[in-house]
Formats: sequence, C-alpha cells, structure tokens
Amino acid sequence: METLTREKIFYEFSKDNKPVKMVKSGTTVAIDTYDCFTNQIQSDRTEINTIDWNHVNPATGPIYVENANPGDILKVKIEKLEIGDQGVMVVGPDLGVMGHRITEMQKKIIPIENGKAIFDEIEIPLNPMIGVIGVAPKGNGVNCGTPGEHGGNMDNKMVEEGATLYFPVFVDGALFGLGDFHAAMGDGEVSVSGIEVPGKATVTFEVIKGDTLNHPMLENNAVYTQIASAKTLDDAAKIATEEMVDRIVAKSDKTIEEVTMLMSAVGQVEVCQIVDPLITARFVVPKWVLEKLDIKLI
Amino acid sequence: METLTREKIFYEFSKDNKPVKMVKSGTTVAIDTYDCFTNQIQSDRTEINTIDWNHVNPATGPIYVENANPGDILKVKIEKLEIGDQGVMVVGPDLGVMGHRITEMQKKIIPIENGKAIFDEIEIPLNPMIGVIGVAPKGNGVNCGTPGEHGGNMDNKMVEEGATLYFPVFVDGALFGLGDFHAAMGDGEVSVSGIEVPGKATVTFEVIKGDTLNHPMLENNAVYTQIASAKTLDDAAKIATEEMVDRIVAKSDKTIEEVTMLMSAVGQVEVCQIVDPLITARFVVPKWVLEKLDIKLI
Repeated sequence: METLTREKIFYEFSKDNKPVKMVKSGTTVAIDTYDCFTNQIQSDRTEINTIDWNHVNPATGPIYVENANPGDILKVKIEKLEIGDQGVMVVGPDLGVMGHRITEMQKKIIPIENGKAIFDEIEIPLNPMIGVIGVAPKGNGVNCGTPGEHGGNMDNKMVEEGATLYFPVFVDGALFGLGDFHAAMGDGEVSVSGIEVPGKATVTFEVIKGDTLNHPMLENNAVYTQIASAKTLDDAAKIATEEMVDRIVAKSDKTIEEVTMLMSAVGQVEVCQIVDPLITARFVVPKWVLEKLDIKLI
Repeated sequence: METLTREKIFYEFSKDNKPVKMVKSGTTVAIDTYDCFTNQIQSDRTEINTIDWNHVNPATGPIYVENANPGDILKVKIEKLEIGDQGVMVVGPDLGVMGHRITEMQKKIIPIENGKAIFDEIEIPLNPMIGVIGVAPKGNGVNCGTPGEHGGNMDNKMVEEGATLYFPVFVDGALFGLGDFHAAMGDGEVSVSGIEVPGKATVTFEVIKGDTLNHPMLENNAVYTQIASAKTLDDAAKIATEEMVDRIVAKSDKTIEEVTMLMSAVGQVEVCQIVDPLITARFVVPKWVLEKLDIKLI
C-alpha cells in the first residue's frame, strides 16, 4: 500500500495542478487529510475571525492514475476511513439555511470520544464521511468548496467507508484528490458545516474503459446512486433522476416510460447538501431491482 | 369505531365544503377511499385518454372534528392502512420529472399479490402510504392535487400505518379528508404517480389546544418531521428546516446558533415529492435528540 501525506494539498481541482503521486490502476493509497479549515481551529481559544478563508477545503493530492484518459471512468473504492479525535462546527451570517437569522460567526469544538461526537450533553453517533472527493474538471479549475460533474465538495453522507465512487475522467491521469471529512453530518448539511475533522482515507483506484459518465455515481452493498450538482436543488434532483433513468433504459430492454414508472415506485430522490455554491442531490436505486432487470449499471 | 364510505368525496379542500360526518376529539373512524383516478382505470382495456381529469385526487370527507378551532392543532393517528389488490401507474407528456421526454400518456395495471406489487417480472415490496391528507385551508379552496400549509397532496411516503400527523387548524371543525393511497412509492414520486390504489385508513382524531403550527408535522416511533410545501424544492427544504429549528429553539434552552449546528449534524433534509403543483420536503429529527434536549415538540 502506498501513502500520501497531507502536506500535499490543493484548493482547486484543475487540469493545471502538478501531480504529487503517480499510481497504476489497482493501487491502494492511504491518504492523510486536514479538516476543511486546514486545521486552523484547534481550540476554543482560536478566534474564528482570525482564520485565513483563502485556505479552506484543502484536498490532498492530486494523484495521477496511469492510463486514465478522458472519457474513461475512475473507480475509487473507500477501503477504510479514519477520523481524528476532535471536530469543529461553525455557523455564520449568510452561511447555510439559517444564515439570514445569524448575526455573528460562531464555532464549536466537538470532542470525539468512544465512538461519539460530544455536542454539549448530546452524544451524537458518528457517520464518518468524505465531503470533498473528485478529479480535475474539463476547462477551468473549480475551487474545492464547489461540487460539479467532477465531484468536488458534494458533501454526500453516503461517501463513507465501504462505498465505491465512479467519476468521469476529463484529463489524462484524472488528477484525483480528497479532503473535508465529517465525523457526522445529516443530509442537507444545513448549518454549512458537518462535524469537521482531519483523517485518513485508504482508497483503491481502478480505471474503467469502454463506459462513460456525465456525473459521479456511488455504489454500496445495497444501492447504486446517481449524484448531480446544479444551481438549485430542483435541478440537481432532476438531473440525477434523468441520468439514472437514461442509464437504465440504455442497459435494459425496458422503454423510457416503463423505467420512469418503475423508478417512481422503487427509486429515491435524496438530498446531499443545500448549502454549497452548487447544490447536490442523488437518485438511489436498490441493487435488487437492477438484478431483476439483469443489468449492471457500470 | 365509526365508518365513512367513499361515496362522500370532495376534490378541493375548502372551508365551504359541507361536513359529511361530525366526530368528537378521541374518535376513531375507518375511512374508505377511491384511488387517485376515482377508480376510473380498472383494466388494460381502459383507454387512458377517456378518463375524466376533472375527477382525480378525490378525498373522502370532510369530517368535522368538534371543538377544533383556528389556531389549534389536529392530531391524526393512522391506526391502520389497508389497500386494494390492484394498482395503476401512469406517465405522460409534461408530467413528472421525465415528462419532457415522453410523447404519449401510458398506464400500467399492477396486481398486488402476496404482499408485493407485480411490475412485469419485478416484485416490488409494498410501502402503503396516503398521498392526500389534510384539512381545509384558510382563504380560498385548494384542489386535492396540490399540497400546502393545510396538508393536501403531500405525497409523503412517511404517511403510513403507525404515523401521527399534526395539522394546523384553519377553520372550525378542521374539515379533514384523505385519499390517494399508494401501494408503493419512492421519495420524489418522479413519474407523477405512485402505485395508485383504493383502500381504507383507520384514523383517530385529537384536538390539541394551546399550541399551534404553521405547516404539518409527522411523528413516528423514531422521529419527528417538519413538512413544508413551496414552489421549489429549495424553498420547501429551507422552510421545513427553519420551522424545525425555530420550534426547537423555542422549546429548549439552546441558542439558534447551537440548534442550527446540532441539526446540521443529526437532522435530515428529505424529499417527499417533486412533481405536484407545489413541491414537498421534510426535515427529520430523531427522537433521541429531543429526549436529550428534554423537550416535547408538540
């Protein structure tokens, strides 16, 4: 297994980033990460107004995956996800769903103890997840706080240990990176932050030829999900649904009308986050349905 | 237990509807319903273009609950939910998420056998639910195909056996009705229809004085949820979140900043439906969090 330390970070997914590691398809890499504030808030004594907002949402990388070319798919299996023992949350004016009601920025240090996040008297069960994960986009770079067709800051709580992501490849080598782990987060990420923590993700890369994607997908033991990001939650939900319907129609012997009805009965429109510069939704289909249709989505 | 047959229907929730039954708080009523097409599509031989679209989404009722007055809350416990043995789904141009890609209306008769909905070779597990449920709104009537502050066509799959709904009361007697059952439906209801079935719901009414609501809430064994409907999914999600945050702030000793952070970690923004004239979302909070805060939401 290879390793990558968190000193190698970038703040923008870009075709112009210089790779910090080259790996072959099939390689497993343990990747260290800072939290989304690049670990600038370590205690209650840190003044929130003193942190450098030009250095938030770092992704560790980029990793160049050999033989990944535009039009391919990069498969990334999250073998293991480890998180630090202290998290932090923030709220502030104009941030998140309640930003219009909040007058000053506040932070909260949240110890992680015995598998729980300690929020005052409330012990929150952990659901460790990766907020920022993706590849270089085509065209201009995209800052690591924004999601898109390349992945990025999707803040999707299904991006957890055991999940497999599939990204469209836009540039040679894909230029993969990840960061922004959360010890716990609900769908929506309504305050604009999860419980932000540093950590280490162990992932295995595989290049898939002969198939292509418009937006990232995610697979776990139970489901396939189509992820999409857009200016509105309405648009993100519709894009995710339509991409999934189109993929099932293309791979099955059902018509678009039949697949639309079937998805209405068994598919789920779900929310990833509603607080980033673009909004992210997912459309979720149980694997047993795909097995009955006798198709593989990827 | 009292009963109400499905001959007593209305197509618009309205303060002007004449009650078909008067009950006291605490009464249990078994209510029969047509499906959302008022049972017009009973076989593959029914031409979809022959059905009367002025007679869809009937609700059985209205029921006048004594002593329910504007500003009160009407609590409705779904004691039992029974469905018929045949369902129907539809797709059509300009309907649902895929309506821009569909050129003619199609229907599909779906037998319900041995606890499954038979969709061609696919046996779909049932999740019986109530699509239309609510009370008369203030002001003008609202057709039963549209959701709102009064409930109506929320198409929320959590409205199932065992759930309890809480509605704002806008007019004396509340003027409750329900209909539009689905044998199965996923969040989003992306085709514009679930597996539409007739059925019978047994519900118990209770009038709650001294508390009030702006939008319906739902409780089950595990969670409380705030429901909201709006022109966009973005707005519905934000309204549901803000209403829930405000209610928890009002009932607890936490600040709005603390509750916003807590909800970001443990609350879920979820989708009810994205296909009706207004869109419906819900914000879901686990009961164990409210118990730790030592508050009752209603």
